[in-house]
Amino acid sequence: MSGFFSERYRDLRPYVPGEQPLDRSYIKLNTNESPFPPSPLAQMMARREAGDLQLYSDPDCRALCAVAAEKLGCGKDGIIFTNGSDEILFFAFAAFCGPDRPAVFPDITYGFYPVFAQLSRVPYRTVPLNGDLSVPVDSLCGCGGTVFLANPNAPTGIALPLRDVERIVASNPGTVVVVDEAYVDFGAESAAGLIERYPNLLVTQTFSKSRSLAGGRLGFGLACPELIADLQAVRFSMNPYNVNRMTMAAGIGALCDEAYFRECTEKIVAVRRSSAERLRALGFELTDSSANFLFVRHPSVGGEELCLRLREAGILVRHFDVPRIKDWNRITVGSGEQMDALIAALEVILS
Amino acid sequence: MSGFFSERYRDLRPYVPGEQPLDRSYIKLNTNESPFPPSPLAQMMARREAGDLQLYSDPDCRALCAVAAEKLGCGKDGIIFTNGSDEILFFAFAAFCGPDRPAVFPDITYGFYPVFAQLSRVPYRTVPLNGDLSVPVDSLCGCGGTVFLANPNAPTGIALPLRDVERIVASNPGTVVVVDEAYVDFGAESAAGLIERYPNLLVTQTFSKSRSLAGGRLGFGLACPELIADLQAVRFSMNPYNVNRMTMAAGIGALCDEAYFRECTEKIVAVRRSSAERLRALGFELTDSSANFLFVRHPSVGGEELCLRLREAGILVRHFDVPRIKDWNRITVGSGEQMDALIAALEVILS
Repeated sequence: MSGFFSERYRDLRPYVPGEQPLDRSYIKLNTNESPFPPSPLAQMMARREAGDLQLYSDPDCRALCAVAAEKLGCGKDGIIFTNGSDEILFFAFAAFCGPDRPAVFPDITYGFYPVFAQLSRVPYRTVPLNGDLSVPVDSLCGCGGTVFLANPNAPTGIALPLRDVERIVASNPGTVVVVDEAYVDFGAESAAGLIERYPNLLVTQTFSKSRSLAGGRLGFGLACPELIADLQAVRFSMNPYNVNRMTMAAGIGALCDEAYFRECTEKIVAVRRSSAERLRALGFELTDSSANFLFVRHPSVGGEELCLRLREAGILVRHFDVPRIKDWNRITVGSGEQMDALIAALEVILS
Repeated sequence: MSGFFSERYRDLRPYVPGEQPLDRSYIKLNTNESPFPPSPLAQMMARREAGDLQLYSDPDCRALCAVAAEKLGCGKDGIIFTNGSDEILFFAFAAFCGPDRPAVFPDITYGFYPVFAQLSRVPYRTVPLNGDLSVPVDSLCGCGGTVFLANPNAPTGIALPLRDVERIVASNPGTVVVVDEAYVDFGAESAAGLIERYPNLLVTQTFSKSRSLAGGRLGFGLACPELIADLQAVRFSMNPYNVNRMTMAAGIGALCDEAYFRECTEKIVAVRRSSAERLRALGFELTDSSANFLFVRHPSVGGEELCLRLREAGILVRHFDVPRIKDWNRITVGSGEQMDALIAALEVILS
């Protein structure tokens, strides 16, 4: 860092995203991307905008909000769109935390949370996952802070049932509870239906995984109009045009093509189930994942070693160098063919 | 604002962007968009990415940086890309200001600067423009703060000669000087050539105006590798995938199509010149604009009234409700046809 860098951020430790190699020959199971391209309708709508890019995108995202209101069943002023869901999460740290309202989240969860807290300059506190890597619901109840709960959790994939999520929301009436549902479409229960009853609930989702738009960058938040207005105040203080025209159009296409969405998510759930069985047959231990990834460890190979050996075989998975989960790897559920290649490589490594 | 909104931001006053009507029948001269579509090459490259959006964009923007290094003559580690140049400006406020290094900028300049300062929670100080609305160079020399200098300035369009910019940079060796060159391609001198000699200089530019990509959202910063590394630390702490795949590709296309870029900017400069003459003939006073807009006032019509009456005639221009410039309007330089319509409407209004 240069001598000009603010003293306030001397301890900032940026997030390290999964590797994005320029070499397309790798089988990428490391960043939870979808193995399927975006819906043909989303693609067509995005392409149509390319000739109009001299015009700013609509900072109020009116067309997208109208479609989302219809397809997701929210009010038009009950939703906010952002440049990926990372951006809405950052906005939430800025808007809803502070010296008197620390952020609270599990010790093992989305690794960006502590970074957002640092950048927003708000205190945070972690609560340890249970021994089985499940979220300690009681520790998050009435915890006196702004809760960030990834459900399903990352990188474990374990989902809380809705009644537990509601317990956390109901027991923290004085602070916001952010339920980060990046992976919810692969089998968990969304908390969006609770918003009407809880003014402190913010649900965030993304088009990156279940709608195949990771490279388009589109996320959103659902909450009561008052919380959305707070988040809009932050958005209009940073980047009112944060969602570009092509992505806005792609988002509309993706929301409208409900059949494609269902087809893709169902395929991924089916491949997750069969892949889990095959991994168990190879001796792997797995968490009960409701996401588009599996979290696995093997009694005879260390986590880092497995990750490196798969890389040598041309397959990227994600290993986190964090004490409690250093024996584990997170493996994206890819296509059937990709998972065949994974199993074949693992058979060689374990032989 | 809800009861959950952070006390730290109680005084936050978000930026108000220019109107973006859904009704495309307006002649839009209010947000400095280009009247020309993006380069055909940029469009084609953006469209090609739509089928690959299931994959994240490259957080290191390697392909775009390589092309930019060649076309802009910077080092690959001397550039950072962002979601529009608003985002790089926000990063700069966060990275380079602090309690001991207030942001310093003119009282009349890009209206987002004080908002960025508020959101970043850093103090700021303004220096008044001279009576002729030019930037008071001496007041920014050795000013003890992090300088934000729009050159050409907005909304006046007045550019400082490079020697004055250099004087400001050279006289503030202990703080960063950010030269915001959103409009530089329409006739001002860029400070990018000074970067080698000044480790405290950050130049920001955008693809929104001169490269017709306002709705694509692409901005960038040029500086020595150390300052760029600071800004990357902020970027990787907020949104490492901030630039989507389609926009990254469009940016490459726009940089490569240098003939189209020259053609568009030359046309705009020519239309600016002829429009300025016609406005003067109608009795308007104009600043000497080096940007893709004109800043005008008329002795017989108030600024707000003129803006409203043009709106009634189907033409949007930008009025700022700020005491010193309340008699003025900022008018984007559109196509020849759009400016003909503007002049015709003004003739009616003034008759």
